[in-house]
Amino acid sequence: MPIDLNSDMGESFGAYTIGADDEVLRWVTSANVACGWHGGDPAVMRRTIQRAKELRVRVGAHPSYPDLLGFGRRVMQITRQEARDYILYQIGALRAFAEALGVPLQHVKPHGALYNAAARDRELSLGIAEGVADAGGNLILVGLPESEMVRAGKQVGLRVGREAFGDRAYNEDGTLVSRKMAGSLITDPDAVADRVLGFTQGVVKSITGKEIRIEADTICLHGDTPGAGAIARRVRERLEAAGIAPQPLGEIVR
Amino acid sequence: MPIDLNSDMGESFGAYTIGADDEVLRWVTSANVACGWHGGDPAVMRRTIQRAKELRVRVGAHPSYPDLLGFGRRVMQITRQEARDYILYQIGALRAFAEALGVPLQHVKPHGALYNAAARDRELSLGIAEGVADAGGNLILVGLPESEMVRAGKQVGLRVGREAFGDRAYNEDGTLVSRKMAGSLITDPDAVADRVLGFTQGVVKSITGKEIRIEADTICLHGDTPGAGAIARRVRERLEAAGIAPQPLGEIVR
Amino acid sequence: MPIDLNSDMGESFGAYTIGADDEVLRWVTSANVACGWHGGDPAVMRRTIQRAKELRVRVGAHPSYPDLLGFGRRVMQITRQEARDYILYQIGALRAFAEALGVPLQHVKPHGALYNAAARDRELSLGIAEGVADAGGNLILVGLPESEMVRAGKQVGLRVGREAFGDRAYNEDGTLVSRKMAGSLITDPDAVADRVLGFTQGVVKSITGKEIRIEADTICLHGDTPGAGAIARRVRERLEAAGIAPQPLGEIVR
Amino acid sequence: MPIDLNSDMGESFGAYTIGADDEVLRWVTSANVACGWHGGDPAVMRRTIQRAKELRVRVGAHPSYPDLLGFGRRVMQITRQEARDYILYQIGALRAFAEALGVPLQHVKPHGALYNAAARDRELSLGIAEGVADAGGNLILVGLPESEMVRAGKQVGLRVGREAFGDRAYNEDGTLVSRKMAGSLITDPDAVADRVLGFTQGVVKSITGKEIRIEADTICLHGDTPGAGAIARRVRERLEAAGIAPQPLGEIVR
Repeated sequence: MPIDLNSDMGESFGAYTIGADDEVLRWVTSANVACGWHGGDPAVMRRTIQRAKELRVRVGAHPSYPDLLGFGRRVMQITRQEARDYILYQIGALRAFAEALGVPLQHVKPHGALYNAAARDRELSLGIAEGVADAGGNLILVGLPESEMVRAGKQVGLRVGREAFGDRAYNEDGTLVSRKMAGSLITDPDAVADRVLGFTQGVVKSITGKEIRIEADTICLHGDTPGAGAIARRVRERLEAAGIAPQPLGEIVR
Repeated sequence: MPIDLNSDMGESFGAYTIGADDEVLRWVTSANVACGWHGGDPAVMRRTIQRAKELRVRVGAHPSYPDLLGFGRRVMQITRQEARDYILYQIGALRAFAEALGVPLQHVKPHGALYNAAARDRELSLGIAEGVADAGGNLILVGLPESEMVRAGKQVGLRVGREAFGDRAYNEDGTLVSRKMAGSLITDPDAVADRVLGFTQGVVKSITGKEIRIEADTICLHGDTPGAGAIARRVRERLEAAGIAPQPLGEIVR
Repeated sequence: MPIDLNSDMGESFGAYTIGADDEVLRWVTSANVACGWHGGDPAVMRRTIQRAKELRVRVGAHPSYPDLLGFGRRVMQITRQEARDYILYQIGALRAFAEALGVPLQHVKPHGALYNAAARDRELSLGIAEGVADAGGNLILVGLPESEMVRAGKQVGLRVGREAFGDRAYNEDGTLVSRKMAGSLITDPDAVADRVLGFTQGVVKSITGKEIRIEADTICLHGDTPGAGAIARRVRERLEAAGIAPQPLGEIVR
Repeated sequence: MPIDLNSDMGESFGAYTIGADDEVLRWVTSANVACGWHGGDPAVMRRTIQRAKELRVRVGAHPSYPDLLGFGRRVMQITRQEARDYILYQIGALRAFAEALGVPLQHVKPHGALYNAAARDRELSLGIAEGVADAGGNLILVGLPESEMVRAGKQVGLRVGREAFGDRAYNEDGTLVSRKMAGSLITDPDAVADRVLGFTQGVVKSITGKEIRIEADTICLHGDTPGAGAIARRVRERLEAAGIAPQPLGEIVR
């Protein structure tokens, strides 16, 4: 199966720098660029898209709840219509920079708590999907396989991208092991690469050691963990050594 | 001379309502819609553009300094590049709603202190004009006649719209009388209508009583003054009684 | 039973005005003043406390989630420690104005979604109560009778004030009828006054017509409903006609 | 002359970390703690004051323009009354944490563009000084020697602290060399220490090599430059080797 490598990018804000954008960006094929609501600002958005363009990495929007103080990591009880409007606003803002730099937007991946809450919340997911649909441009909505978000995306006629996590442990039922649990985060570059190679076959080993099936179109490599650049590089190299050239999501999802 | 009537719109925010949008919108031909930085929010942006569409009023962006607390009325010393990025962000956000509703963006009119500061500041004006140019779409940049903003717009290849104020007194040199001066604000509907009619001939009487020349493509009718709706209605009726049908700015400026 | 009349105040922000502060303030005995996180700003805080002082109305803090866009009406999943820190920050900011004007802070009443979420959430309530305790000054924490917030307040050693609502219908179990239900809001001044008089006896008629017991130290009169000033006046007049002089919460809760 | 060593602290925000607080804090005698308007947040404020307390470093407020996006480094044209209200709000918020931790506030040092603008702007300085006076508590206002801010502080009856910069070059007239000029920043630890020792004698060598007189009560050591911790340590060690024990500003300014 073809696979995309994505990473969250452009989450710096004003005087504040976060993430290892420069190191990770050269190894992935899709960048999820923050839109200013949990991180990112207009200058960072321009710079991040410019760098992605130079490295031929495809660009998507990474919209969030309006929560800079909480970095978008806290669930807020917003309505379906609010979700729709918030998503559309952020996509529009980011797309203006992308278009100014001659780069089309490829996808939309909600950030943090919004992503997680939407996975289980049908109304919220429909609001997000409607916002993406409002934006036009045949954008791909990225979410967890089997999630409400992926279902909502299909329902409103969007292309959807199913995402797996190279550096997160899975439960037997295919859900992610909570970050609070020991062993939930995998930081050894080769262990992450092993898992990414597994995903290209549709399988991953759960935290209990059982092989489970996960169908994914794109693999997230987090940029805010120590050693993120080295992990991304190893994953890319191991994939290519196995004869698998990562492809941007837009080449995979039709 | 053909003339456009414009008004600032969509400056409500969250639980807060401001302006007489509904009353004014039916009499103008162009609406400057706030983009969330001094006023406006995603829900208000959608609603405002929807109403403008229903009334066949053309829509433009009304971007600002990032100053919700000050309603964009305080000068901030931002760089040319910051201005460019801030303008592009706000245009993009607003345009997403406009396009979702099938409405093209017609123009960009900076708000409040940004508009006034740019009139005299070449670097700031160039930043604004570059942001508008980045956005593409043949947008018209609206500014004071003879201002640095209009010059900057022309320099970067934009269409520009020269704006006059129906409810503000002018000095003999064509500048606006400070709001702090007695007589600076004209609130009698017929007095405003007289002035607007004058502008269609390229003339207005200064506060000292002298007739001066002002070449304008669009007349601003403020929506936040008491009686704004009645003033806008009278202006429109008096124009039409004189055989002058206001036209959207995009029909005037080529 | 002695009773306090309270109302939310000072929720205007920058150029935006909300509420009928001037009309309501003269009839209540305690004002809950917004602290800038859902509404209010430094200028509004100063002005509101100044007016309360002139009318000899006691002043408390009305802190919120950090959600100006949502006016604090949306639940956010914050931690106990975040609640504690947010409450302390807002109390401190407001108290600086109160002390500058020679007015002691009397109480703290969380706003909107924070108030409602805390009623059922022990950890959140403990965070709030700890923030109030951190602030010192023997502040009274205001919450629903029998709520987690009142329990948390007692647990950390605070004085607590139990609040009833003059303009909201009650279920038979003493909870408030959802605002989404018909009949949940009572807007007839005399009907509100009847209920407030009932509260002074510890009773109110539920929406089903059954008399239930509610023990309250303070009655909230909302300032953002149409006719808020007239309702507040009628309540005050009816109380005084019945020989009951409302007293500030600090005189009631020991 | 006795001397205080101060540094800006607690400017991290949410998920964002900035500055070398831990390394610098152990060598200074006064900490200027951000209040959430240009940096800092309630959690950071509590943590920063807690650490300062442990290291017996005195604590002051470091208030700013409301400009998180610009980190408070951009002048905003606010009124005297706005300055007064903004300062009071921020002092109050910070003081609540200080008092909760049993630490009295010692001083107020405006941040960034507000500090610089106030140095030359009498009205702005008076607003700041009035805000500090409103806060009570015999707070010391810190500003440039001979600046409008120091004058305003004296005028409203405040104690004032005159500040010099150990790592910034001076012009012959005692003003700071613009950061845009080569040589404006001094980063060699011993060179900074030499200058700080000079300040204890009331002298510093200007960028042209001329010895000039600067009377200062406190020396700022920036925490956001590379090597900030090492510089601070060297300064402290060199001072103590010369028999000069830095003292908190409150011990110096009476």
